[in-house]
Amino acid sequence: MKRRILTEGHEAFRLTVRTFLAQQVEPYYAQWERDGIVSREAWRAAGQGLLGTAVPQEYGGGGEPDFRYAVVLAEEFTRAGAPGLAIGLHNDIVGPYPTSLATPEQKRRRLPGFCTGETITAIAMTGSGAGSDLQGIRTAAQDKDDHWLPNGSKTFISNGILADLVVVARTTPEGGAHGLSPLVVERGMAGFERGRNPDKIGQKAQDTAELFFHDVRVPKENLLGELNGAFAHLTAHLAQERMAIAVAGITAAEHLLELTTAYVDERTAFGRPLAKLQHIRFEIAEMATECAVTRAFLDRCIEEHTAGELDAVHASMAKWWATELQKRVADRCLLLHGGYGYTNEYPVAKAFTDGRTQTIYGGTTEIMKEIIGRSPLN
Amino acid sequence: MKRRILTEGHEAFRLTVRTFLAQQVEPYYAQWERDGIVSREAWRAAGQGLLGTAVPQEYGGGGEPDFRYAVVLAEEFTRAGAPGLAIGLHNDIVGPYPTSLATPEQKRRRLPGFCTGETITAIAMTGSGAGSDLQGIRTAAQDKDDHWLPNGSKTFISNGILADLVVVARTTPEGGAHGLSPLVVERGMAGFERGRNPDKIGQKAQDTAELFFHDVRVPKENLLGELNGAFAHLTAHLAQERMAIAVAGITAAEHLLELTTAYVDERTAFGRPLAKLQHIRFEIAEMATECAVTRAFLDRCIEEHTAGELDAVHASMAKWWATELQKRVADRCLLLHGGYGYTNEYPVAKAFTDGRTQTIYGGTTEIMKEIIGRSPLN
Amino acid sequence: MKRRILTEGHEAFRLTVRTFLAQQVEPYYAQWERDGIVSREAWRAAGQGLLGTAVPQEYGGGGEPDFRYAVVLAEEFTRAGAPGLAIGLHNDIVGPYPTSLATPEQKRRRLPGFCTGETITAIAMTGSGAGSDLQGIRTAAQDKDDHWLPNGSKTFISNGILADLVVVARTTPEGGAHGLSPLVVERGMAGFERGRNPDKIGQKAQDTAELFFHDVRVPKENLLGELNGAFAHLTAHLAQERMAIAVAGITAAEHLLELTTAYVDERTAFGRPLAKLQHIRFEIAEMATECAVTRAFLDRCIEEHTAGELDAVHASMAKWWATELQKRVADRCLLLHGGYGYTNEYPVAKAFTDGRTQTIYGGTTEIMKEIIGRSPLN
Amino acid sequence: MKRRILTEGHEAFRLTVRTFLAQQVEPYYAQWERDGIVSREAWRAAGQGLLGTAVPQEYGGGGEPDFRYAVVLAEEFTRAGAPGLAIGLHNDIVGPYPTSLATPEQKRRRLPGFCTGETITAIAMTGSGAGSDLQGIRTAAQDKDDHWLPNGSKTFISNGILADLVVVARTTPEGGAHGLSPLVVERGMAGFERGRNPDKIGQKAQDTAELFFHDVRVPKENLLGELNGAFAHLTAHLAQERMAIAVAGITAAEHLLELTTAYVDERTAFGRPLAKLQHIRFEIAEMATECAVTRAFLDRCIEEHTAGELDAVHASMAKWWATELQKRVADRCLLLHGGYGYTNEYPVAKAFTDGRTQTIYGGTTEIMKEIIGRSPLN
Repeated sequence: MKRRILTEGHEAFRLTVRTFLAQQVEPYYAQWERDGIVSREAWRAAGQGLLGTAVPQEYGGGGEPDFRYAVVLAEEFTRAGAPGLAIGLHNDIVGPYPTSLATPEQKRRRLPGFCTGETITAIAMTGSGAGSDLQGIRTAAQDKDDHWLPNGSKTFISNGILADLVVVARTTPEGGAHGLSPLVVERGMAGFERGRNPDKIGQKAQDTAELFFHDVRVPKENLLGELNGAFAHLTAHLAQERMAIAVAGITAAEHLLELTTAYVDERTAFGRPLAKLQHIRFEIAEMATECAVTRAFLDRCIEEHTAGELDAVHASMAKWWATELQKRVADRCLLLHGGYGYTNEYPVAKAFTDGRTQTIYGGTTEIMKEIIGRSPLN
Repeated sequence: MKRRILTEGHEAFRLTVRTFLAQQVEPYYAQWERDGIVSREAWRAAGQGLLGTAVPQEYGGGGEPDFRYAVVLAEEFTRAGAPGLAIGLHNDIVGPYPTSLATPEQKRRRLPGFCTGETITAIAMTGSGAGSDLQGIRTAAQDKDDHWLPNGSKTFISNGILADLVVVARTTPEGGAHGLSPLVVERGMAGFERGRNPDKIGQKAQDTAELFFHDVRVPKENLLGELNGAFAHLTAHLAQERMAIAVAGITAAEHLLELTTAYVDERTAFGRPLAKLQHIRFEIAEMATECAVTRAFLDRCIEEHTAGELDAVHASMAKWWATELQKRVADRCLLLHGGYGYTNEYPVAKAFTDGRTQTIYGGTTEIMKEIIGRSPLN
Repeated sequence: MKRRILTEGHEAFRLTVRTFLAQQVEPYYAQWERDGIVSREAWRAAGQGLLGTAVPQEYGGGGEPDFRYAVVLAEEFTRAGAPGLAIGLHNDIVGPYPTSLATPEQKRRRLPGFCTGETITAIAMTGSGAGSDLQGIRTAAQDKDDHWLPNGSKTFISNGILADLVVVARTTPEGGAHGLSPLVVERGMAGFERGRNPDKIGQKAQDTAELFFHDVRVPKENLLGELNGAFAHLTAHLAQERMAIAVAGITAAEHLLELTTAYVDERTAFGRPLAKLQHIRFEIAEMATECAVTRAFLDRCIEEHTAGELDAVHASMAKWWATELQKRVADRCLLLHGGYGYTNEYPVAKAFTDGRTQTIYGGTTEIMKEIIGRSPLN
Repeated sequence: MKRRILTEGHEAFRLTVRTFLAQQVEPYYAQWERDGIVSREAWRAAGQGLLGTAVPQEYGGGGEPDFRYAVVLAEEFTRAGAPGLAIGLHNDIVGPYPTSLATPEQKRRRLPGFCTGETITAIAMTGSGAGSDLQGIRTAAQDKDDHWLPNGSKTFISNGILADLVVVARTTPEGGAHGLSPLVVERGMAGFERGRNPDKIGQKAQDTAELFFHDVRVPKENLLGELNGAFAHLTAHLAQERMAIAVAGITAAEHLLELTTAYVDERTAFGRPLAKLQHIRFEIAEMATECAVTRAFLDRCIEEHTAGELDAVHASMAKWWATELQKRVADRCLLLHGGYGYTNEYPVAKAFTDGRTQTIYGGTTEIMKEIIGRSPLN
């Protein structure tokens, strides 16, 4: 069924992204996986048009807040098997803080480097794996003369090794989820340390770090937005984060299905193509149906989010549903490849291990169901 | 998420359908279930605007081929728990044969009664439960002077007891699925007999019959369309049948979810509302997500079908996916009602038994997967 | 795989049960389903050897407490599709109260009629569908001179219309689940009323009633066992109830699989037996595996229970697992019968509707999981 | 529920295995994973009692053919997360060939080294991932004077890099699965080459190789058993292989459940232990039930196999069911660990990737279902 939500402009951008992937990512990606981190050169190369697409042009960005560009970018990076260069995180999850909350002075200071790739960003929100329990944020920053003094730690911060940081900290002991503020903590500030990059099952080129804050002196001008006013922004941006992950999920599922359909058409067993076996055909038919159904929903959600009308419930639905689909499809496609699916020589194997985190980060499936289950449905 | 495919005209028609259900169906439905058949009065009442909506006005119809009116009708009948008055079958599955294939003379003869409810229709396509294996049609009609002589039998024909018939018969021994023609067999023709109405698990007001044809003399003018030319029409109309069933499926699921959400909000266990239990909330969240995802897909398919662009693969996806969802949701909602869900005093029980045929008739889930799995995907 | 837990004695009893079913049940069962209740004659016929198998011979029983006789009886009634003659409930769920708790005088008064079928029993434990929440029992009996005065109501009591009763009531306001006592309430006592027999989805020959107690004068000698001392007995007997339901569950699944394997071997589609289709073979293979796995577990549990060593956790596992298997198998077997599976002319249809209550009564699947999840595992 | 199939002798052996694992495996395993292969020293250490347990004592073995020793060994290696030292493959899959088929002279030549660990074995049965399609074996050996000349290739041969080999080859072009013979091909024979050890998702210490045979001169005395007579042995040994994999499957599931139960008891979220959340309790309850059910079945199968009575159908049921359980449990346990489950610092992560091959090797789940579905059930 033809997609209807993308224009020629988006498809032109898709070609740009593909060229970038072919030239700047694919030749180096295996090395980045061995290193556990991507190169700064890659980020600077991405600075030629892929970073800060939504940042106003006066600060070096693309000036195009249309979320569908982010969608195209996520789709192409997913198809290329290159989740480790976390441009989506930088552009769409962190980017909205300096773009929408910063003062003009802060924008002038932060955004040009954000767009050239000189500055790589990350966001340190919740602690210890809770994903999105904003009330559970325990990193607290003390108000001390002309600076804030955050103390605490954050786990599983993507881009954590490479990045300058936005930290979300408790800036008043009261108010639960309403006493939070985003502070920019920079590389090299005294008292800010990074743990080691853990050995993950997949996404091996994506650096991830535990971060420690011990009386870091963060100048007051590094506060983004109004004091204690982060809540509304956080929840708004969480919807965008969830959509970005969901888009990667459906795209991964579609891509795996294409690879596997081609595989079973070619591969023979018992003297004929696998695709001639009824069980294999049913497997393909079921996955094709699930992908088509999910794509229709995702494209509706993208449309709504582009119009600024997607609510938290539907973003949460998209997140868990699309990533659980991705997980199921990856598992089934691996099995359809037989022993080959278990070796990293086939993309299905890497997609299986890379993808397994998708139901976890950005809020686990369980947290998504909590959000949906607590809301009145209509 | 707001639906976008319906206009004010469709919503106005929805009110008409609701009024009809409240006045002409709900007061009598329990009796029809005991009788195993609906009354002819109900059909004549439906003739005041609900029958033949797509038939040109010159023949007494509504003159509105827009499929979304059929969608609205299916949705409201499903919500009312009244599948036994099979207007959708009459309008959307049988109707296209006389409307699109008949000669002007045949239309003048057939369509006015079709629209007033004097004539109730059914379609006898495949034999013995195969659902949609057109190649497997074995009822054959012999060419004999000025008439056709069909011989054979057909099973599980909805409306079979009440209706005049369209029979799809093999009119040449060659050509496989390409040697078929629709013949109108009428009540009272010698050699045409009906078996008894079997005791079904649900849909008890819907008459169903096995039909027997033994040298029935069918005048040649009862042939609809070109001789041996039914194939293209059959496959086109099968897509419409599948969509109609799929629409009932998603609507039933949504309706059951609404009923059950209300139930778990009110009902207490261990001293608090069921809805406060995390497991119950997750059940609701999962069903709500599946309904939202499926609705997005269905509405896209409706849109495509209204524009004449829905292919067999996507109609088949819609059919099996939506009816399997309905089945899962009915089962889970029944359990959430505890012992009450097992008694016909709660609508969830009737929805469970009525709905169980949805994955079977109009082509089983397995046949849908065959259709999808045999097609190149794109 | 050969079963190892049954001896020749059990298999001889199986033949007795089969003869009884063939002579006393099968010719009448359809009528009982129409009546919504079995005949008292059937109970008296059962009194020739099938009732009170575990009751000591001096009181007219079989004197054989071996649980495997109950297993054989449950298996044969399940295979005959005759759950409505609830001998298992009478023998194994209610029976233990008078047999193990009663005084010699009470035994002399109650047990002979229990064994001849003159007295039919039921047990009214929890209220309103909670299944097995003993703490939630709200029917309270006041201590009043030489009698107890119970007040309250109980829902979904199997045998409720036909039976004399054991009621479990709160006999002290304190103690939670520890303030309960079993009282015998008899037909005809003033203030004891029965609601109507609801129209259920299945198990139509099994009478079920809501019961109302309004200041019923129950003589003190109708208390069974020690005052406020029911808890230990209740929990012990709940394990037996769960096992009885689980045995019916696995047996139903095995029986449905046999019927369906025979059906797909005979039935043809697309010109060859259904069993030649890979999908069908896989369906059969999956169900056969699940049945074999579950049978091994059930037989282990039966062995442990016969030895008096089965704990509540494993009884709960057996209950939910075997009944959920039954449900899945019934659903898949129905679909494998196509349209025929939806008509009550095929046993698979009746097994589907009869069986649907199995995951609900005797403690729903959710309650079983609560019991398991709260216990330390080992 | 207490296991009943193991004696004190088996439990004493368990302690021996644990000591071996603690001293000879665990300190080195991470290095073996980095190397992609275990050390020969480990094999020689295993030669002090763990190799050749079923080999007669006169040839240096343990003289104990009881399969339950193999079960204990598989259980302990699985719990230690050390599948890469493939003693089970050596003892139980390859071992039966020289032990039961060889002539006394061959036994004297082969078995002592087999028991000391000087000779490491592997078996090259089917080609290209088909798993267990004996008819599909295409490696053919030509009869040439005093030797055989095998030609062909084999994929995914575990121990393929380290081992001397048994190759199953076609020794006559006729007879389908009945024209096969086992030949011993030795390291260093001209024309026998090994491909590289592929980068697998897990089981990284287990060497795996593609093997190539090009006119290898295999002396006629390297034929094991009767010419063209391998079939009966192959099918008998396949049952043992499947049981060994199934035992690892259920053991892995049980072990993961223990780890995860401990984790959710300790770990807090939203201010209380994860185990207090109903959803988590249900997850644990479901997995505990599935493990208990499967364990009962596996122990029955072990019992039958020890008695020489397990048929191919039940071995196939055990294989697919237990390994699919392992896969589901690994996936759920990973998620219950949140982000930590995605890092190789937690055993659940390694168990997830190591275990993913279990549904594939030794015959995929699909092949097992074929075997079951084609057999008459009883």
